[in-house]
Amino acid sequence: MKSDSRAAVRVGLIGFGTVGQAFARLLARETPDLQSRRGVALSLAAVANRSIDRKRDRGLGEGVRWTEDLASVATDPGIDLVVELLGGIEPANGLIRAALNTGKSVVTANKMLLARHGTELQALAREKGVGLGIEAAVAGGIPILRALRSSFTGDRVTAVSGILNGTCNFILTEMEKTGRPYDEVLAEAQRLGYAEADPASDVGGDDAAYKLALLARLAFGRDVAFDQITREGITRLLPCDFVYARRLLLTPRQLAVARLLESGHLLLSVRTHLVSETSLLAKVTGPFNAVEVRGESGGPFIFSGRGAGGGPTATAVLADVVEIARGGAPAAPPLGFGVLEPCVPATPEEFVSPFYLRFVVRDRSGIIADLARILADHGANIEAVFQAPYEDKSALPFVMTLEPVSGKALAGALVEIDSLTFHVVPPLALPMTE
Amino acid sequence: MKSDSRAAVRVGLIGFGTVGQAFARLLARETPDLQSRRGVALSLAAVANRSIDRKRDRGLGEGVRWTEDLASVATDPGIDLVVELLGGIEPANGLIRAALNTGKSVVTANKMLLARHGTELQALAREKGVGLGIEAAVAGGIPILRALRSSFTGDRVTAVSGILNGTCNFILTEMEKTGRPYDEVLAEAQRLGYAEADPASDVGGDDAAYKLALLARLAFGRDVAFDQITREGITRLLPCDFVYARRLLLTPRQLAVARLLESGHLLLSVRTHLVSETSLLAKVTGPFNAVEVRGESGGPFIFSGRGAGGGPTATAVLADVVEIARGGAPAAPPLGFGVLEPCVPATPEEFVSPFYLRFVVRDRSGIIADLARILADHGANIEAVFQAPYEDKSALPFVMTLEPVSGKALAGALVEIDSLTFHVVPPLALPMTE
Repeated sequence: MKSDSRAAVRVGLIGFGTVGQAFARLLARETPDLQSRRGVALSLAAVANRSIDRKRDRGLGEGVRWTEDLASVATDPGIDLVVELLGGIEPANGLIRAALNTGKSVVTANKMLLARHGTELQALAREKGVGLGIEAAVAGGIPILRALRSSFTGDRVTAVSGILNGTCNFILTEMEKTGRPYDEVLAEAQRLGYAEADPASDVGGDDAAYKLALLARLAFGRDVAFDQITREGITRLLPCDFVYARRLLLTPRQLAVARLLESGHLLLSVRTHLVSETSLLAKVTGPFNAVEVRGESGGPFIFSGRGAGGGPTATAVLADVVEIARGGAPAAPPLGFGVLEPCVPATPEEFVSPFYLRFVVRDRSGIIADLARILADHGANIEAVFQAPYEDKSALPFVMTLEPVSGKALAGALVEIDSLTFHVVPPLALPMTE
Repeated sequence: MKSDSRAAVRVGLIGFGTVGQAFARLLARETPDLQSRRGVALSLAAVANRSIDRKRDRGLGEGVRWTEDLASVATDPGIDLVVELLGGIEPANGLIRAALNTGKSVVTANKMLLARHGTELQALAREKGVGLGIEAAVAGGIPILRALRSSFTGDRVTAVSGILNGTCNFILTEMEKTGRPYDEVLAEAQRLGYAEADPASDVGGDDAAYKLALLARLAFGRDVAFDQITREGITRLLPCDFVYARRLLLTPRQLAVARLLESGHLLLSVRTHLVSETSLLAKVTGPFNAVEVRGESGGPFIFSGRGAGGGPTATAVLADVVEIARGGAPAAPPLGFGVLEPCVPATPEEFVSPFYLRFVVRDRSGIIADLARILADHGANIEAVFQAPYEDKSALPFVMTLEPVSGKALAGALVEIDSLTFHVVPPLALPMTE
């Protein structure tokens, strides 16, 4: 990096899909202004992608080298900083390592790679004295990683949580608004480009968990592993859940939660919660994201914005590029995580919450009594039972709310409850959150 | 600053009121952790305040010099970084200049001083190659200035706005909740410590305008002067305004707005808006703050949190101290604003909005006709007229909503309307915002 000269920082872009193209256009548009107003000189030196000939864009300037040889950009001595926007584990991992090993700083939006190998990549960047920018990997344009890195150094974070997956949030808010079933709304989300053809990583919670791993590492300085995060998808919610939730003045939201318990353990989960209709999180609708940070001295702080898409992600990538270009490599602040302590995840006993339990049953007498007995056996107290008027006695939905109970006790009760023979679909348990 | 040694950065604290004491305690608590986990060594070297003997706190360590001589801390060669938490213009301004002139970095939460003299102080800090940290001056612990400085470098901000004064927001949300009049709620806010004994700067809009000046400078790189900001207080709202607002599915919020218009002019105002009940801003209640940023590529992004108080402000101060201590003086990034372009504020013609007009009149025939004629003469179109059932014919409130109209046209109409003789209190005009 040219920290003390006026020579431009030469950027190599690997990956020229939606985000890559948005980044290249943004870079071209902003370069004159960044130079004149902020004294940061950048130039796009190379773009690498498969089938690059179809994508070549002359509007990005004559000096750009277009190539299908991704590795040639990662190791090119004529490049100072590599922007990796391929996604996925390989070849991204190898390319980033090659770039760092040849003394280049790297900016990436690759949450999956960072969640799985971010700690090693960060150590390599430190060893080589170069920057590793990861802001775009979480919540698109919301500058939450930078806030955790720089703004909460004066506080101790006790919890970081949020709506981290725009696909899930779109589906849940759309189901709430229209009363339509999950499958229909998923198909619409796919038509609108809010869901992938294979939605498993989004709707199953993996995508939010990748981001939560990065947030929790920065917030708590612990070496949070992806597999330490409990994950539960949104696929089992039924239209009736939205009806009952509204009756309780609640609304379903997929929340990723990392909370430091008094035991020193980290509670780490991605699942659907029922949150208060009057909460800020309930107002985060459609494909928007939100992150809430609580600290010992300050908070709660809420950051909300569009979580994905070319524009916001490209903006976050460019902000990291500018920050690294300004600092110069040797002085570049670590954009990722520092030396991390081990992470001990919370046990199921430690997650205590009031719960919503929804059943769909073939009606017969004694169902409530059976359920109440099993719940009591496991120390779970019923707060209320709700049953909306319903015609179909062969598939009758109803809801119980439970006083605060541990995840372990509830899981024990649900194993027994599952074995009862009157269920039409398996029972659904959702924590109810303020 | 000791950028390359392990010696501690010696902090001198000037001002030991609520925020100063909270900062000193936070610093004492966090010092070991900052050293061991982040490699940042800090020590509190001196505390200056009037009547310091009454306030001396042995818990902060033996090495602290306690003094009533504020200037001695600002110029002490044994101090590397000065934290100014006095507030007000003088002596804060002189002390900060003295500290910068003797090569010390400065961190301050002094919004009034920064709004009035921040540009010169920033130029002096640059000239001396030291840091000037100002994050705590706006919205307490919400790291909005840092976000504008580092995270939106890849975008062009088109608007920054928000709820920047917790006193006003507490009063407005309390009036809404309880239906009580302004004076009663102000008295309660004073009892609870949410309003000063002299509330003029808060309720009149000056306090929010100081913060808006800082936000707008960072967002737009323009030399926004405090006096360029239109200011209107919350003191004229009546309980009936909350009744009519709810009927329109709106709620009153004091918003500070800086918006870049296509003309290149900046719209700069602090006033009460009616915002949609379903908006995120409507969910920001009590003493909370929120800032919304819109960019060409990204946004809207919303940042919300507790805007004032010892804890959040001290946290923001410490984050700036840590950032400066990490970077070392020569490499210290400018924490404030860079070289600014001139600011041309928008003209009243350029502010176009639908408006809410509330009248309280001695009832007689022809009032609506008179008003409608004057409004029509000035090109303002009435959208609807609302009148809640009301007993008292000698003080009858009613409301008109206007289709989008320029501030200039409306002001012209209001001058004529004010001269009519049926008013019990002067009419109130509030813009209605999405």
